[in-house]
Amino acid sequence: MTITIAYIMAISVSLISFGVAYYFYLWVKKQPSSNETIHKIGDLISKGTSTFLRREYLLLARFAGVAAILIFIFLPSPIWTGNPSKNIIMAACYIFGTCLSAMAGKVGITVSTIANMKTAEAATKGIRPSFLSGFRGGAVMGMSVVGGTLLGVTIVYALTGGEPSAILGFSFGASSLALFAKAGGGIFTKTADISADIVGKVELGIPEDDPRNPAVIADNVGDNVGDVAGMGADLFDSNVASMAAALVIASSLGKGDFQVMVFCYAAIGLLASAVGVLAARMGKNASPTLALNMSTYVTTGIFAGLTAIATWLFNFEWRVWGAMTVGLLVGTVIGVVSDYFTNDNKPPVRYVANASKTGPAFTILSGMSYGFLSVLPSMIGIGVSALAAYKLCEPLATTPDQAASFGMFGIAMAAVGMLSIVGMVISNDAYGPIVDNARGLVEMGHLGDKALDITDSLDSAGNTVKAVTKGFAIGAAGLTIIALLGAFMSQVNVAVDQLNAEAGKILYEKIISFDLLNPLVFFGLLTGAAIPAVFSAMLMLGVDRNAQRMVAEIHRQFREIIGLKEGKEGVTPEYNKCIDIATVGALKELVPAGVMAIVVTLAVGFIGGVQAIGGFLAGNIVSGLLLALFMSNAGGLWDNGKKFIEAGNHGGKGSDAHKAAVVGDTVGDPFKDTAGPSLNTQVTVVSLVATLMATLFLTTNLMNLF
Amino acid sequence: MTITIAYIMAISVSLISFGVAYYFYLWVKKQPSSNETIHKIGDLISKGTSTFLRREYLLLARFAGVAAILIFIFLPSPIWTGNPSKNIIMAACYIFGTCLSAMAGKVGITVSTIANMKTAEAATKGIRPSFLSGFRGGAVMGMSVVGGTLLGVTIVYALTGGEPSAILGFSFGASSLALFAKAGGGIFTKTADISADIVGKVELGIPEDDPRNPAVIADNVGDNVGDVAGMGADLFDSNVASMAAALVIASSLGKGDFQVMVFCYAAIGLLASAVGVLAARMGKNASPTLALNMSTYVTTGIFAGLTAIATWLFNFEWRVWGAMTVGLLVGTVIGVVSDYFTNDNKPPVRYVANASKTGPAFTILSGMSYGFLSVLPSMIGIGVSALAAYKLCEPLATTPDQAASFGMFGIAMAAVGMLSIVGMVISNDAYGPIVDNARGLVEMGHLGDKALDITDSLDSAGNTVKAVTKGFAIGAAGLTIIALLGAFMSQVNVAVDQLNAEAGKILYEKIISFDLLNPLVFFGLLTGAAIPAVFSAMLMLGVDRNAQRMVAEIHRQFREIIGLKEGKEGVTPEYNKCIDIATVGALKELVPAGVMAIVVTLAVGFIGGVQAIGGFLAGNIVSGLLLALFMSNAGGLWDNGKKFIEAGNHGGKGSDAHKAAVVGDTVGDPFKDTAGPSLNTQVTVVSLVATLMATLFLTTNLMNLF
Repeated sequence: MTITIAYIMAISVSLISFGVAYYFYLWVKKQPSSNETIHKIGDLISKGTSTFLRREYLLLARFAGVAAILIFIFLPSPIWTGNPSKNIIMAACYIFGTCLSAMAGKVGITVSTIANMKTAEAATKGIRPSFLSGFRGGAVMGMSVVGGTLLGVTIVYALTGGEPSAILGFSFGASSLALFAKAGGGIFTKTADISADIVGKVELGIPEDDPRNPAVIADNVGDNVGDVAGMGADLFDSNVASMAAALVIASSLGKGDFQVMVFCYAAIGLLASAVGVLAARMGKNASPTLALNMSTYVTTGIFAGLTAIATWLFNFEWRVWGAMTVGLLVGTVIGVVSDYFTNDNKPPVRYVANASKTGPAFTILSGMSYGFLSVLPSMIGIGVSALAAYKLCEPLATTPDQAASFGMFGIAMAAVGMLSIVGMVISNDAYGPIVDNARGLVEMGHLGDKALDITDSLDSAGNTVKAVTKGFAIGAAGLTIIALLGAFMSQVNVAVDQLNAEAGKILYEKIISFDLLNPLVFFGLLTGAAIPAVFSAMLMLGVDRNAQRMVAEIHRQFREIIGLKEGKEGVTPEYNKCIDIATVGALKELVPAGVMAIVVTLAVGFIGGVQAIGGFLAGNIVSGLLLALFMSNAGGLWDNGKKFIEAGNHGGKGSDAHKAAVVGDTVGDPFKDTAGPSLNTQVTVVSLVATLMATLFLTTNLMNLF
Repeated sequence: MTITIAYIMAISVSLISFGVAYYFYLWVKKQPSSNETIHKIGDLISKGTSTFLRREYLLLARFAGVAAILIFIFLPSPIWTGNPSKNIIMAACYIFGTCLSAMAGKVGITVSTIANMKTAEAATKGIRPSFLSGFRGGAVMGMSVVGGTLLGVTIVYALTGGEPSAILGFSFGASSLALFAKAGGGIFTKTADISADIVGKVELGIPEDDPRNPAVIADNVGDNVGDVAGMGADLFDSNVASMAAALVIASSLGKGDFQVMVFCYAAIGLLASAVGVLAARMGKNASPTLALNMSTYVTTGIFAGLTAIATWLFNFEWRVWGAMTVGLLVGTVIGVVSDYFTNDNKPPVRYVANASKTGPAFTILSGMSYGFLSVLPSMIGIGVSALAAYKLCEPLATTPDQAASFGMFGIAMAAVGMLSIVGMVISNDAYGPIVDNARGLVEMGHLGDKALDITDSLDSAGNTVKAVTKGFAIGAAGLTIIALLGAFMSQVNVAVDQLNAEAGKILYEKIISFDLLNPLVFFGLLTGAAIPAVFSAMLMLGVDRNAQRMVAEIHRQFREIIGLKEGKEGVTPEYNKCIDIATVGALKELVPAGVMAIVVTLAVGFIGGVQAIGGFLAGNIVSGLLLALFMSNAGGLWDNGKKFIEAGNHGGKGSDAHKAAVVGDTVGDPFKDTAGPSLNTQVTVVSLVATLMATLFLTTNLMNLF
């Protein structure tokens, strides 16, 4: 297979996936929705979502503009030293990446704000049509995001002739936008969720999604901007970064056939996802969880089979195929672990629910403890898979000094393998907030208890699957960023060769290792490890501050709007005030954390040079994975612990155990939906910044002075 | 200066410090104590403390016996392959280390259970005599622990002629006992503290230290076994490990003059501490915090001056002196950072106290966030100091291949420098639980409000200083374990030389790096980083389970003992039942976590060999430091946030903000007093196990099969 055929294959599959997405979009639009209340509320949600997204994108456009100018001036090498056309290309690719990432979010929320109404209405007819509306709504997002990834990477790679700086610029564009979109969406959604719960559930004892609650629409808007738009941007960025890492390493090795494999396997993954998504249906007596899992299994099976055939047909390296399969396997392991720690049928959730009887302190302590325990199997799994993928591909090297790069390519392919079925993963993931919203619409539209039961069971399936897909996303990011460490080394060595050739003598030494006994590496390691903690803290404090503002506003409305608390006919709260607070607050709080991560990376690089950055990236990866797994699992555990009690255990709703569990859930919310999932992106962005700046860090740093 | 003179100097200073300790002990004993109630309660505390310690030491003796037998059979090399006399010496040194560590705890609690009564009684006479009783009680511990360290290390080193395996065995003995003593004491103290608070303060609204509370004596016993005995064993072990790391590296370099410097500087540090402790007094209008800090400054000043003179007089290397001074400086930085995040005059505590008004979830979220923020300056500080110390000592190498070892020696000396004033640190630290206990005795003995005010203010000074000394202990452990990574490499390379010489050919390659791009190192890094999280989780779950048992027992007593709740004359609770629950539970829960850490280390070593262990140690250090700093600072912050509210802010005692702050404090208790401070020891133990097993990991591992 030549690279041109691989490009054509990738582009064709992208177009197919867009076709599937469009078909689903039309199908969802065609579903009936006649209830007027639902329409009215749905419009409010849709309008709030669009407003936030517009304002967020306006802010980010300015950020991206500044970044593009900086890239144009300084990267891949300062404009006065190198080839300006390369700078223009890189800046253009960067902007292209941000635009595609933004579009991923936009498409997702456009369809999800329609699908939620259809799903709510369909719930009056039964669980099967309701499930299908929710799932196909999510699949629009899944198919278009992954189609966009593949199309974008292919276009950039084909047009620039496989220029590494261009693909890295594109990936950085996708990631930097995702970083802010996730952080902003995460702060918005948890501000609204926590505030609505605290005043509604805890203080006043009114049900979730009660229309009297001024924050209820903001809460639904939050589901869209946080879980749909944010998660879409996040997986878009992981997906691009994994391909970028594999392509950059392959290009530094001059292995054209490896590049072909990356495109070919990625295309097959998308094709398999499309089939899986089309096949997804609830059986007569089946549960929605089973239907979601079944379609994932179908996708995985098709993918493994088709890639094996392709490998045999086109004479690809079986070792690379093996590395990719290792990635798929470990994705499953992490999923199973996440499920064990967050499923309310398993001991951890039961233990925490039981501990809640003694008070909120025990809910927190036991939940945190299980969160900490949950990291071990996943960390070992990622470590073992990296080791296996590396060892599989290392023997492909023809000269010993290339062994490390071949090994790192194996790790990158494991990440590609794990992300190959990402179309399916995003579809499952976007299903969650759609049915969550649908549940709210059923409640607010008074569609009856039967419909509420149906959306409740769809929602619960969404929660279970969500924990698994989150583990998946973290694992994939983990492998991607380990591979990016390899890409960083490749880029440094390419620069070394170039600079030495220009100077006609040995100016710089090639990097052959990042040695833990080198104190620069260790200094980087310690600093890098602190960044995810600081980043999480800044986001959580953002939520904390913002939620306090919103709680004050909700209190004001209940105090000042006469008849609101009593639910007097015709009295509605000022929903927009709450949406506005969440919007303004999120926009204010989203910037500092992301900028901090980037600035510290630059500082470490310009102070300690490439060795310090090597340690910095490793420390960042390790502590980022640790905290992301911990936060995501602890948060999921608390959420389901609360749900378990609400289902009537340990005294049920309103009991002391329930109050304690609500505290746990409130702490867990920003863990699992703000800080935890943003950490992937933070680590990816930092890795990409380092890789982009490789040459500058090599030539310009404080340590060079000694 | 010859090594013999250095030995004599070290032994003489040890004897002086024992003299100072004995003088203080007699002084404390001589102080009046006539109040009968206090005597009765003091005896109960003393008896409970001794009982726990005896049962704990009996359990640990069995553990140590098994470990000694294993060492005898397998270390430094299996008895059938090497020189059996070396094995006997190592096992003997190991036992010697455990005995000294145990004695450090025993001495501490013997005097603290007397000093608390004297301090309580002295409080009726004024703050200055009361302060002096508390401080001198603590100083007995400080002087005897550090005297014991120096004497023990000197004896082992002198008698074995500087055999590295002997000193490592001694250090491992000290650390392994400290690991279990800290964990056991930490579980005991927090079980009792949390249970007493939950039922007493939260449910019944009775004051702290109310004699009606069945857990009140157990709480006081906990202060002794956790904070006094545990902290004593912990700092004993850090102190020994830092000297061991420096000595092992110096010996592998064949640098006798470096060994002389280690003993000389350590002796000067102890001398300076003795002078500082003797000089400590409260001025007329001074605060106890100032008195504690002043004596630390005096010690530091004397130390810096005397070591400079010694360096000049004996022609020591100024670069080594510089590395040591860097350690002292960074210790101060970490102290200042800890103070900022935990002092109730500073913004973080104020913010968390204010957030508590919105409920416990916000107390937790904001406290955790500040805990995460607090790690950055300290991690950077440790990284920079390691870098500076390394770069200072690297140029002392005469051949390039020794540069890394010289650099690592610099880091070890920075740790020695940071720990040089440890005699002072322990004195300050042991002061805390003594005055805390004294406060309880004043309350229970009805010594009047004035005395209560005095002990309150002494207690508060203890809390502030404690946060600083904890930061100090963590920083010192951090540098020590980085140096132990160097010691591990030295030991591996010594083994490589020996094995190759025996075989007459190159069987193994020397280690020159632990490369982050090596997937074995990365696998180790990820696994090692997960261990501190799992270790903390196991300890916290231990506290959680144990506290639930004790809360049930307290409820039973209040239900079944008639007249107890009403405080009827002559009705006393069954204090011993609670002490017994805490004892049995702590002994049950202390073993698994420590054993887990050791077993995983062995597994990684036998699977991945020395490269995997190199990564494992680095991952362990990074995540251990991260979590220890986070937990210690967040815990201190919540504690002082609660105290700030209790001082009458935000509604004071009994308000909703106070209830939320109590939840924060309850979560923070096992953070700062169980898991956090045990992490140092966990990381040290793991590093020592790896260093001891270096030869076996080199020759016997799964990767050798490939």
